Amino acid sequence: MIIVMRTGATRDQIDNVIDKVHSFGLRTHPIFGVQKTVIGIVGDNKTQVVEKMRGWPGIEDIIPILQPYKFAGREAHPENTVIELDGVRIGGDEVVVMAGPCAVESEEQLMTAARRVRAAGARILRGGAFKPRTSPYSFQGLGEDALKLLAAAREETGLLVVTEVTDPRNVELVCRYADILQVGARNMGNFVLLTEVGRSGHPAMLKRGPSSTVKDFLLAAEYVIIEGNRDVILCERGITTFETYTRNTLDISAVPVIKGLSHLPVIVDPSHATGRSYLVEPLSLAAIAAGADGIIVEVHPDPDAALCDGPQALTLDGFDSMMAKLKAIAPIVGRTL
Amino acid sequence: MIIVMRTGATRDQIDNVIDKVHSFGLRTHPIFGVQKTVIGIVGDNKTQVVEKMRGWPGIEDIIPILQPYKFAGREAHPENTVIELDGVRIGGDEVVVMAGPCAVESEEQLMTAARRVRAAGARILRGGAFKPRTSPYSFQGLGEDALKLLAAAREETGLLVVTEVTDPRNVELVCRYADILQVGARNMGNFVLLTEVGRSGHPAMLKRGPSSTVKDFLLAAEYVIIEGNRDVILCERGITTFETYTRNTLDISAVPVIKGLSHLPVIVDPSHATGRSYLVEPLSLAAIAAGADGIIVEVHPDPDAALCDGPQALTLDGFDSMMAKLKAIAPIVGRTL
Amino acid sequence: MIIVMRTGATRDQIDNVIDKVHSFGLRTHPIFGVQKTVIGIVGDNKTQVVEKMRGWPGIEDIIPILQPYKFAGREAHPENTVIELDGVRIGGDEVVVMAGPCAVESEEQLMTAARRVRAAGARILRGGAFKPRTSPYSFQGLGEDALKLLAAAREETGLLVVTEVTDPRNVELVCRYADILQVGARNMGNFVLLTEVGRSGHPAMLKRGPSSTVKDFLLAAEYVIIEGNRDVILCERGITTFETYTRNTLDISAVPVIKGLSHLPVIVDPSHATGRSYLVEPLSLAAIAAGADGIIVEVHPDPDAALCDGPQALTLDGFDSMMAKLKAIAPIVGRTL
Amino acid sequence: MIIVMRTGATRDQIDNVIDKVHSFGLRTHPIFGVQKTVIGIVGDNKTQVVEKMRGWPGIEDIIPILQPYKFAGREAHPENTVIELDGVRIGGDEVVVMAGPCAVESEEQLMTAARRVRAAGARILRGGAFKPRTSPYSFQGLGEDALKLLAAAREETGLLVVTEVTDPRNVELVCRYADILQVGARNMGNFVLLTEVGRSGHPAMLKRGPSSTVKDFLLAAEYVIIEGNRDVILCERGITTFETYTRNTLDISAVPVIKGLSHLPVIVDPSHATGRSYLVEPLSLAAIAAGADGIIVEVHPDPDAALCDGPQALTLDGFDSMMAKLKAIAPIVGRTL
Repeated sequence: MIIVMRTGATRDQIDNVIDKVHSFGLRTHPIFGVQKTVIGIVGDNKTQVVEKMRGWPGIEDIIPILQPYKFAGREAHPENTVIELDGVRIGGDEVVVMAGPCAVESEEQLMTAARRVRAAGARILRGGAFKPRTSPYSFQGLGEDALKLLAAAREETGLLVVTEVTDPRNVELVCRYADILQVGARNMGNFVLLTEVGRSGHPAMLKRGPSSTVKDFLLAAEYVIIEGNRDVILCERGITTFETYTRNTLDISAVPVIKGLSHLPVIVDPSHATGRSYLVEPLSLAAIAAGADGIIVEVHPDPDAALCDGPQALTLDGFDSMMAKLKAIAPIVGRTL
Repeated sequence: MIIVMRTGATRDQIDNVIDKVHSFGLRTHPIFGVQKTVIGIVGDNKTQVVEKMRGWPGIEDIIPILQPYKFAGREAHPENTVIELDGVRIGGDEVVVMAGPCAVESEEQLMTAARRVRAAGARILRGGAFKPRTSPYSFQGLGEDALKLLAAAREETGLLVVTEVTDPRNVELVCRYADILQVGARNMGNFVLLTEVGRSGHPAMLKRGPSSTVKDFLLAAEYVIIEGNRDVILCERGITTFETYTRNTLDISAVPVIKGLSHLPVIVDPSHATGRSYLVEPLSLAAIAAGADGIIVEVHPDPDAALCDGPQALTLDGFDSMMAKLKAIAPIVGRTL
Repeated sequence: MIIVMRTGATRDQIDNVIDKVHSFGLRTHPIFGVQKTVIGIVGDNKTQVVEKMRGWPGIEDIIPILQPYKFAGREAHPENTVIELDGVRIGGDEVVVMAGPCAVESEEQLMTAARRVRAAGARILRGGAFKPRTSPYSFQGLGEDALKLLAAAREETGLLVVTEVTDPRNVELVCRYADILQVGARNMGNFVLLTEVGRSGHPAMLKRGPSSTVKDFLLAAEYVIIEGNRDVILCERGITTFETYTRNTLDISAVPVIKGLSHLPVIVDPSHATGRSYLVEPLSLAAIAAGADGIIVEVHPDPDAALCDGPQALTLDGFDSMMAKLKAIAPIVGRTL
Repeated sequence: MIIVMRTGATRDQIDNVIDKVHSFGLRTHPIFGVQKTVIGIVGDNKTQVVEKMRGWPGIEDIIPILQPYKFAGREAHPENTVIELDGVRIGGDEVVVMAGPCAVESEEQLMTAARRVRAAGARILRGGAFKPRTSPYSFQGLGEDALKLLAAAREETGLLVVTEVTDPRNVELVCRYADILQVGARNMGNFVLLTEVGRSGHPAMLKRGPSSTVKDFLLAAEYVIIEGNRDVILCERGITTFETYTRNTLDISAVPVIKGLSHLPVIVDPSHATGRSYLVEPLSLAAIAAGADGIIVEVHPDPDAALCDGPQALTLDGFDSMMAKLKAIAPIVGRTL
């Protein structure tokens, strides 16, 4: 950590700061520059302690040097984390495709989608049972009935199931039916939910909050991991910007950036990022080209009749066609599909 | 609602859309322009139904005309909502000041702050018991012990108490001690929590999510109100932008904008918006000048020793000095303090 | 265009608006809804005229239906524009790679880079002669000396030359040496410069302003085109967001979005978008996978010694390696390289 | 400056960096932490030189400690700059109000506005002669004819004149008629124009670019000042964010932030920041309450007939009413009006 003193900070202020830091059991290395004094601090990572001095007399800024996350970072865990689930390896050589409808609407809708995406090479079935929606007047999901349908689809197709949990009181319920618990973008800062998900021991897929930096995203993963659950998948799904043509702005750079900073698998959700189905294929190809470990896309047997987010769903034929291209791109970046 | 057909949409596509809309029990008014056809739709506010057609063959865009919120909007409720609590009227003529420490740390800290802010004219005591923090390694609050201290401070000073609830399972607990339930910015999209808060019947203070538009903010209030709880205070506390000098960017325009669109009281939190104590006074004055119904500010007897967000807290003397200026500004904009 | 009247607008206000619109020679189609009246307007695209009524008594909003650009849009020109220059076709089947140093520093630096990128398959040489820099204390480029070196490099290698022009008084000068005039991101709203570039008749490469929507970007292209110059290349180079890890946030979605809205060629600059060289390869692959017509990347024989933006430049070997992967990806999306 | 070495950087890499820094004539203070080594650098402010090492083997980050601007910062010039012009003192005790139409349209329009704003207490007349517009199809201003009308209005009313210059070739022309040269927000990064304005010796009003941080804004001022012209007024006029209800988001915090970092006068433009006339009064009051040295607002005798930005202009009566409130607020923050 580096403490930057203000121009004109007095010797007394500087000594005060140094004494205080020593009282925390840390060592100091003051550097007296022409205009400013900075104080390097060495010792255990007690950022929280020193942060409290921010704003003290004579202190202009406190600059952390170490990463604020311990378990999510690659420094502590240089090898890629690979999550193994019934033979599917997320974060390994294979690009993993998760696909299915935005919301589970009926057995027929779900089974039709599940069979087709399975046939085309998807390994994991997505489908919302609990749908957080901006408006209380929008369709909110079928709840446990949807979970039962998802479990039945897994039974028949062998696909794993990922679905969102929105309520800490429902974590146990969702664990009974799903293989992977999704925490949605709106809930990335819902630390109560993250903690329950961490305690469940189930693999988690954490979506990036729309105004979260990569650093905050990794800190949210840290909330899950410190409960003892290291199986966290990070999902880039677009951030909030001034551009309104797309629903959000897919931060494609976040893929290689997170792969550099963290050992956790990174996947991309182009459906929610853009809100427009014609953008899903080009952005899925881009995601894999940029090094993502997988994608999660919405597919609907009849997008025009979807109860939720129909405009962003691929048709079954569209999904097939995209998969063919993904299979061609994967080996170019050293992956399989 | 207006459906905009693509340039070159066929007559069949247009007829299809019209038939479908009729099947929803709505009337259509097609307008055939030189380049494009648009279809005006009249009938009940069935936006959700028509929205599903977005992306249909020939449809370029669907533009809603009516506001998506019913109860939070001023159209349905032209008069200002005034929330009365033990003689304090929030949203009335008086500018209401909420003040206190970021987090409750000890009886002495809380009581010292409470007595002083009461003396200076604050009507409501703030203090965090459950603290959601970006990092799991930061101080997370004293929980129920803090709630008990808050209740004791209310007992002695007569101040009302506002404090944050972060877990739907704790709503009942917090209701036992607090007068107003705060939903924090990170939880503005936590609809499970909003619903529980709405059901509690307690007045709620809802903070704007850092990437929420004013429209989304009012829809979040709608989640509380549709549970039968109309006593919602809206709190502008800064939005996420590219500017990093301040923690967030206070959207001061949101004050008159929300006052125009909604009947609910609007207050401003300059402490969290900026993260720097020297900005709290000028922005508090600005908030009242812009028409806010109140402010919520952090005050700490000893900001340098604060366990949470010390750098943004006012000193007790700083609070006194700010209150003197606020009292002078209030009458200029037709308010009292 | 659609005029939306306020809830409660009087019949007089509605009639007034209708009369005024008629006086502009336009036809009106009022639709009287339950809550609101909207007025559809048909006739020539006189948006500018009707826009002036925004804010009139009783008017809540005016919603344009037609695209604000005429020549840049695909509606007016459905086929892709292909810019042909000495056998290089930009916007055609071939993915076009522009590469070279950020700034021209010396003959040796430029020639070394030019020869190697030519050998690896680049068709166009980039290199700054006039460098706009955030700080006046940064290196500002070698000016005409750099232009001469670029022309010499073209002579030897056969590469075309693209370089930035920053001053309307220098357009003629730069035209003497360069094949394509670049307008930088900071100058996308410098309409004086856009107009001069349009008048020059030289092909132009227009970089997206960091806070420009796609719509504003196409309107900037319109400024060039209305001077009679249709040879405009659009370059996505990242937008300003809250994420600070990368210099800007590459808006990869903009590639397929612009290809849909416009007939102009679209290329991507991953070097400036990210500011970090290790991100250039993954984002270049992503750009081509997403459908870009080309990329422009910074390559430096010795990035550590670069006078400008060294941290984002590829090494010569890094460029070779990236080109090999690009060549493999191009055919998967129906292109050549 | 602080160089942060990567975790695991070798002793050789560290020594290499230290040797290189020494070769620039700077001193080093390495601090060997448990995980990382950081190297403090002391000497002349040669940021540009060391910045080039960013990305070198073993270097993770380079953190500047000193402010990048020399003349615009308060460290070099602790007292407020007061610009005196014919008895008007900008940046002094008096709050300075600049008012007038967005664009000069006719003698009658301009004179009517000028007389009324003068009577109400404005000291400076605004009015656009050259109008940069997002669309080439919008009204672009009357050019020199407008300048002549502005000069005539000054003659009659005694108001000073501020007007925008968009073309470096027109700086001399505009200087002949105007007292203060405005550089618009779109041109804040047009360093060619900033340099010409600096050379003119005329006081300049520089609008903040919509995606510029405060730091970049002060660096733009630096471009003007290093030409020998210290009379620079900084104008906050809203930044680009995701909120679309207002045209831009007024960054009210920037007022006290810039007053802290810089000695230059700071004014606020609520008209362009919001694009809606009903927001101009509350935000003007907020600006002065927050410590601004003045405001610049659009006033039009007949906003409904304005050729440019009518929806954001105050009426003459609206201006009078706002001025009365501003006069009441000024003394509360220690100013006059």
